[in-house]
Amino acid sequence: MKLIKGNFIYSIDKDNIEVKENQYALIKDGKIEGFYSEIPENLENIEITDYKDNIIIPGLIDLHVHAPQYAFRGMGMDMQLLDWLNTYAFKEEGKYRDLEYAKKQYSKFVNDVKNSATTRLSIFATLHKEATIMLMDLLEEAGIKAYVGKVNMDRNAPEFLTEDTEKSKEDTIDWLEETKDRYENIKPILTPRFIPSCTNNLMTEINKINDKYNIPVQSHLSENPSEIEWVAELHPDTNNYAQAYDKYNLFGKENKTIMAHCVHCPDDELDLIKQNNVTIAHCPQSNANLTSGIAPIKKMLGMGIEVGLGSDIAAGSSLSIFRAMSDAVQVSKLREAMTGEANQILTLSEVFYLGTKGGGKFFGNVGSFGKGYEFDAVVLNDESFGDNSNFTLKERLERIIYLSDDRNIVAKYVAGKKII
Amino acid sequence: MKLIKGNFIYSIDKDNIEVKENQYALIKDGKIEGFYSEIPENLENIEITDYKDNIIIPGLIDLHVHAPQYAFRGMGMDMQLLDWLNTYAFKEEGKYRDLEYAKKQYSKFVNDVKNSATTRLSIFATLHKEATIMLMDLLEEAGIKAYVGKVNMDRNAPEFLTEDTEKSKEDTIDWLEETKDRYENIKPILTPRFIPSCTNNLMTEINKINDKYNIPVQSHLSENPSEIEWVAELHPDTNNYAQAYDKYNLFGKENKTIMAHCVHCPDDELDLIKQNNVTIAHCPQSNANLTSGIAPIKKMLGMGIEVGLGSDIAAGSSLSIFRAMSDAVQVSKLREAMTGEANQILTLSEVFYLGTKGGGKFFGNVGSFGKGYEFDAVVLNDESFGDNSNFTLKERLERIIYLSDDRNIVAKYVAGKKII
Repeated sequence: MKLIKGNFIYSIDKDNIEVKENQYALIKDGKIEGFYSEIPENLENIEITDYKDNIIIPGLIDLHVHAPQYAFRGMGMDMQLLDWLNTYAFKEEGKYRDLEYAKKQYSKFVNDVKNSATTRLSIFATLHKEATIMLMDLLEEAGIKAYVGKVNMDRNAPEFLTEDTEKSKEDTIDWLEETKDRYENIKPILTPRFIPSCTNNLMTEINKINDKYNIPVQSHLSENPSEIEWVAELHPDTNNYAQAYDKYNLFGKENKTIMAHCVHCPDDELDLIKQNNVTIAHCPQSNANLTSGIAPIKKMLGMGIEVGLGSDIAAGSSLSIFRAMSDAVQVSKLREAMTGEANQILTLSEVFYLGTKGGGKFFGNVGSFGKGYEFDAVVLNDESFGDNSNFTLKERLERIIYLSDDRNIVAKYVAGKKII
Repeated sequence: MKLIKGNFIYSIDKDNIEVKENQYALIKDGKIEGFYSEIPENLENIEITDYKDNIIIPGLIDLHVHAPQYAFRGMGMDMQLLDWLNTYAFKEEGKYRDLEYAKKQYSKFVNDVKNSATTRLSIFATLHKEATIMLMDLLEEAGIKAYVGKVNMDRNAPEFLTEDTEKSKEDTIDWLEETKDRYENIKPILTPRFIPSCTNNLMTEINKINDKYNIPVQSHLSENPSEIEWVAELHPDTNNYAQAYDKYNLFGKENKTIMAHCVHCPDDELDLIKQNNVTIAHCPQSNANLTSGIAPIKKMLGMGIEVGLGSDIAAGSSLSIFRAMSDAVQVSKLREAMTGEANQILTLSEVFYLGTKGGGKFFGNVGSFGKGYEFDAVVLNDESFGDNSNFTLKERLERIIYLSDDRNIVAKYVAGKKII
């Protein structure tokens, strides 16, 4: 047990932010036990860490990130999805067959994640089994919690990045067997890249693997009009893109599933997302960089759909989920300004929820400071922005979301364990 | 004379970026004399600074920034223009009648500008003469070059921030007289806040002052539909917002003029901008934050209109003109995605031009490294982003635009003088 003192700010739900000013949080077995204004009498001899006037928020959650694209983030930002994949992303991912290259680049990625405000992620690796395990090892060592997926892709990519269907299946099973019980923090997630990358045979095999191993699933959905047309051609028996996953049982229901983007979902697709309890990873910067558009997040939240945020490195340039929060507000305003549709604008409370508790749900009781929640926390010092004495704690939180970088992070906890 | 060695990258025009890899720039009297691959024989004994593999670009230009709003940047980002002005901006600006408060806040602003990649700015102060002079003094001392404007506003603001018309005129004249010949780096700029803030009498007086002092002008134009309607009501004799400035000779022609925003200009207004040689300050982040919309910059550039970038602190949260460059690309893509209109997307070359040579034109031969240009330069180390050995200098520039912050700045020159 330990006590941590400071100014705690966290989401109750999408519309409500709770502020515990200058209080003690009691952490027991890595979980929040409760808050106290004074040290309780029976706890006078336990360890206390006093973060004084600093702000303490739940660790941020990145629901969609391509670790092997980190090396070229902030480049090639003049293309749309399918061109960009062919020119940049696939070429770089091909290099991860070389374990030495993978170690160098993944070490940089993991180091930067460790020093960021993010505590949990759902990550795409590459199709390479060994490099994927290396990434999992590095994340485990850094104390980050993550789902990591060996990517499956057996068509519509360059030859050097296309798997044989049978090999894709075997490698996936080997990867799951080899990493079983290997980690405290890292779990596998099935990762068919997206429908155009996976033959029907491969999807059938992934479905069988899922029946056996019963693990979560992640992929991409309805990012770009050309991609959606392509999926409709590949699966003429479907009414929407989501059905192409759903017919292989890889779209929510018993399997927790993250679908990234969902910029252009028709209504029946949104209904299926809701019905199957699929979580959407909203990636606003990526959707701007690749000219995809602006997802109707306000509508999704109104429908009760689960939504979190994703950096989507490297289609998104920034690893920061604070940046994803402010981007989400900004693009929602541009959606309202450009379409003229009312009620599109996301509030501060909503984006703070998306980047913490909204995404955190995928990991369990994570992303908030309610009783029983795992204590993932970031301690932030905002003095570098200037005098903060005139501002409320909520105003200081807003400024942290818009302005902070890793220099503002004083300490970081994952499930109660201090990692920086 | 001195030689500076490194990798120089600069705009020739909006479509062409020049790269001088591993060369020597000869600086004479603060201006670029030329580039050399080897040290010329007759220059072997002059001072050489070798920036090795670092990238050297022209100093960035911020054409629109409200210095007295810096203290609350990144806050109150849930309102539109007119509400935001009343709730946040006016209240804060009122505090600048207190010189002690002004000194504290302006010192922070100037210090952060000094440590940024920006070398020149056009700045709105407040209506307070003394505080405006203090800001000019602080900028001069920091070695930054800037136009600074004492704001004129005699209506439609809270009483504590509304001038008597006659006093506004007198204070403006006093301010101009008191600062004449006082600075090496700082110049005054006439700053009627925007049409709704200035009575016809005040506009007439500002016009007279301009006839006498012949200095540049800055203001706001066509940011928001409600504002545009309001101006049409206030000036029923005009066909567009710009004419309300133009009828007082405060819209280009003989007076260099910056108009911020121009998100919703009708065609005849764009024609007048072009005809009068008015410079537009594009402020993409501000226009998102205040739900203003996305300015059609590609169209303006196609018409040959002069355009630069503005941070528009505090409607824009970030002081960084690199951020304004990447924001400009991103919102132009969203403009294309949301309107379906073709040819809206700004290229890397175009936004690099806007943030350097495009804005720099307002200051003379500034913002490029052509012969005779003033040597404003930023030296950037991009090693923190990871191994850069596989990337071209242009790719490294793109990554700097998307990812850098003040930690990447190794040195900074203004008109040949090293200031950090």
